[in-house]
Amino acid sequence: MASREFSITQDVLDRMHPENERFGTVMVSLIRHLHDFIRDVQLTEEEWMAAIQFLTKTGQITTDKRQEFILLSDTLGVSILVDAINHRLPEGATEQTVLGPYYWEGAPRLPMGSDIAKGIKGEPCFFSGQVTSLDGSPIEGVELDVWSGDGEGNYDMQLGSDEMLCRATFTTGNDGKYWFRSIKPFYYPVPDDGPVGDMLRAMGRHPNRPGHTHFIVRAPGHKTIVTHLFPSDSPYLDSDTVFGVKEGLIVDFVRHEPGVAPTGEKVDVPFYTCEYHFQLAPLDVVNA
Amino acid sequence: MASREFSITQDVLDRMHPENERFGTVMVSLIRHLHDFIRDVQLTEEEWMAAIQFLTKTGQITTDKRQEFILLSDTLGVSILVDAINHRLPEGATEQTVLGPYYWEGAPRLPMGSDIAKGIKGEPCFFSGQVTSLDGSPIEGVELDVWSGDGEGNYDMQLGSDEMLCRATFTTGNDGKYWFRSIKPFYYPVPDDGPVGDMLRAMGRHPNRPGHTHFIVRAPGHKTIVTHLFPSDSPYLDSDTVFGVKEGLIVDFVRHEPGVAPTGEKVDVPFYTCEYHFQLAPLDVVNA
Ligand SMILES: [Fe+2]
Ligand SMILES: [Fe+2]
Repeated sequence: MASREFSITQDVLDRMHPENERFGTVMVSLIRHLHDFIRDVQLTEEEWMAAIQFLTKTGQITTDKRQEFILLSDTLGVSILVDAINHRLPEGATEQTVLGPYYWEGAPRLPMGSDIAKGIKGEPCFFSGQVTSLDGSPIEGVELDVWSGDGEGNYDMQLGSDEMLCRATFTTGNDGKYWFRSIKPFYYPVPDDGPVGDMLRAMGRHPNRPGHTHFIVRAPGHKTIVTHLFPSDSPYLDSDTVFGVKEGLIVDFVRHEPGVAPTGEKVDVPFYTCEYHFQLAPLDVVNA
Repeated sequence: MASREFSITQDVLDRMHPENERFGTVMVSLIRHLHDFIRDVQLTEEEWMAAIQFLTKTGQITTDKRQEFILLSDTLGVSILVDAINHRLPEGATEQTVLGPYYWEGAPRLPMGSDIAKGIKGEPCFFSGQVTSLDGSPIEGVELDVWSGDGEGNYDMQLGSDEMLCRATFTTGNDGKYWFRSIKPFYYPVPDDGPVGDMLRAMGRHPNRPGHTHFIVRAPGHKTIVTHLFPSDSPYLDSDTVFGVKEGLIVDFVRHEPGVAPTGEKVDVPFYTCEYHFQLAPLDVVNA
């Protein structure tokens, strides 16, 4: 009977006659790897049933506010791998990272220099920098979508707010420069009260992400990038549970005593500044 | 950045410190194969999103009456592969096959010889045979759990019946012999109005299983087997959508003109007989 353990894979492949060639290619590889995995570990029936139940729960806990399969993909390093494959960028270009589950479309368009963290807990932080091409020339009319949780790591959605908090879209002038006030981002755990949380605990892993401020940078004639900036003193930089940290996205957030901020405003508590230069690849860069 | 596409896999593995060693072994292999699959096909972001949505739907269509993830496992040949790995039987033993989604625990215990298909559509069929050890010696007090759809391929659950139909548990005497009346089983499609149905169509596959009668045979001192008997003239024997057909489980169902059945009763329509000898492996058989 042992030969059935091997012949079954070819039987499944032989059964396929897909119209869409690419779908066929993907499924052939998926079935081969799935069967190889099962043979490699000699999966037991109890383990198979546990897998069925895990996948079922993962689907059933998913709502329009919580996507547990994306969280599973993130925590298994799948999201960042798909990202790496699909966004091979030339030397010098600002790196991509995961979008994350807290993106909310349609952030308010605010004038450059606005404080997007009014009424939000956290240490004030003044972000500034420039968006340029790879050769350093400024790009005109760049759109920056910015969001983060509050200074304790909670996003507006998690705070139960129907209103957007700590989110904005800015458009640069012809010098590609941006500046705004927000808070210094804080580390936070991904939702860990579901099946993915159980998986992380069984793996002996914590659920935390280091602090980060999200950016989507859209510039005419250039590749849009989805990325984060991480304060270099955040905990969990070495063990981001979704594997999103990249060396080039770690920034020194400089601490200042109470006084006058770069925007000229007076701040009566200690504050931070974060300066970052986004360098974008041209649209026609070859993904290979 | 290309090296990130490869280094990420080791990063994910290095992060694990599971208490349960076996869980670690399974996850290491799973992550390696999953990442290899993604690299092999160079999965696009659109394909990744389609996979997330497919898995989500598969979980969300699942209820206590419909298990779409088991159906997915069945149609990808995973269930029968897990079965083959976990039930390596010695030469001569009756083969196992999938349990299928229509098993219902607690079938009525009926006296040997009963008609389990009263009021059910279909061509009458008289099943009989014996349950023995590998050396041919009869086993005493064997329990046979039997079930099938009706003669049009519909199970009681699908007919909207709250009552069990075409199901029974029989216990043999000391000769291991069994006999009962039911119907000749008919081919049927697995539920194909969900994501798995969409997958089968995209693969160019039909959703049908050849006709079969399910058996679970439990005999003291022997390995319990979960199996089917397939009529040798059924359509789809070559293309069972769940890959459950095995040569040794295909039986000639013999057609008879109206007359006296083997049980002595008069049947006024054509009827069938199916004779099958279940040969069970001892309990202490080594699974290797
Ligand atoms: Fe985030
Ligand atoms: Fe069945």
